[in-house]
Amino acid sequence: MKLLKDKIIECGKITDGRILRVENFINHQMDIKLFNEMGKEFKNRFSDTKIDKILTIETSGIGIAAIVAQHFDCIPVVFARKFPSAIISEDTYNYEVHSFTKNITHMVRVDKEFLKEGENILIIDDFLASGAAAVGLINIVRQAKANPIGMGIIIEKGFQGGRKVIEDLGVRVESLAIIDHFEDGKVVFKDR
Amino acid sequence: MKLLKDKIIECGKITDGRILRVENFINHQMDIKLFNEMGKEFKNRFSDTKIDKILTIETSGIGIAAIVAQHFDCIPVVFARKFPSAIISEDTYNYEVHSFTKNITHMVRVDKEFLKEGENILIIDDFLASGAAAVGLINIVRQAKANPIGMGIIIEKGFQGGRKVIEDLGVRVESLAIIDHFEDGKVVFKDR
Repeated sequence: MKLLKDKIIECGKITDGRILRVENFINHQMDIKLFNEMGKEFKNRFSDTKIDKILTIETSGIGIAAIVAQHFDCIPVVFARKFPSAIISEDTYNYEVHSFTKNITHMVRVDKEFLKEGENILIIDDFLASGAAAVGLINIVRQAKANPIGMGIIIEKGFQGGRKVIEDLGVRVESLAIIDHFEDGKVVFKDR
Repeated sequence: MKLLKDKIIECGKITDGRILRVENFINHQMDIKLFNEMGKEFKNRFSDTKIDKILTIETSGIGIAAIVAQHFDCIPVVFARKFPSAIISEDTYNYEVHSFTKNITHMVRVDKEFLKEGENILIIDDFLASGAAAVGLINIVRQAKANPIGMGIIIEKGFQGGRKVIEDLGVRVESLAIIDHFEDGKVVFKDR
């Protein structure tokens, strides 16, 4: 998606020559105009598919998931919990996810009430790296006997193994920007 | 807002006779159709005011804030962090917030880059109870020498002191539903 790639080049910050930071338009401050365009683009990419519900994970997936849902006729969005919360019931689907980036393990949880057998679920998240969180969400969808129809990602770190892990689970991946590698402190995208 | 009150009566769950749970349409599963209508209503209520940016706090404020922003010509949304995050810079405005409901203290943080002197900020959150989180957000806005123009709340617990605390700080509060009290396991709204 050209608009997003241009934005990454213009506004993304690269630290240590290999970490892309997008706090100024995606995961701390959200550029809602851009989010709207990304919502349209996800709808285009999954226009051939019936989607009943969107699943994401706190925190940074929530804003984009809410806006994507508007482009799918305002279907409901469920966000998996990964931080302790008093408001979640005890009757949940759970999956333990280890983040290698942050070296933290979270128990990811979704109330059983909000994923039903046979529902077609589109999973939305901001980043795809090793795929650990994605595997957790796919597993939770399958625990509910629902169908993980696809995974919509804003930025994929193409040099990590996430895509293969997810595709090996039989789930389609659509990423709006795929980073191939970094060169001289700049992002080089995969040409797709 | 009648639509929201009807939804609370229809879908809200009350536990212990005094705790309203809205996980099925606000803070775990999000009813995006309803969120859209709430976005319009916030726009109506603050239509007399120039708003530059929306500030909210993770987790449950993010979805509604993103959708509210669409009704304000897609202005940016910043979400304050309250959980540890590797991606936030160290140059932040901070305020320690104690949640009485959960008996947890969080350091609420916003990167200094994302709140500028003179900006008009609309603060959005899902619940207003004692006002502890709201006070933290207002304080952070004022640290940045920006203007906390108003506070848009989905559900206010009118029997707690939050509104007075915020109004005493000179900030206008608009809540879409105000709970006056509970009676026989049912919500009784304030008539406004």
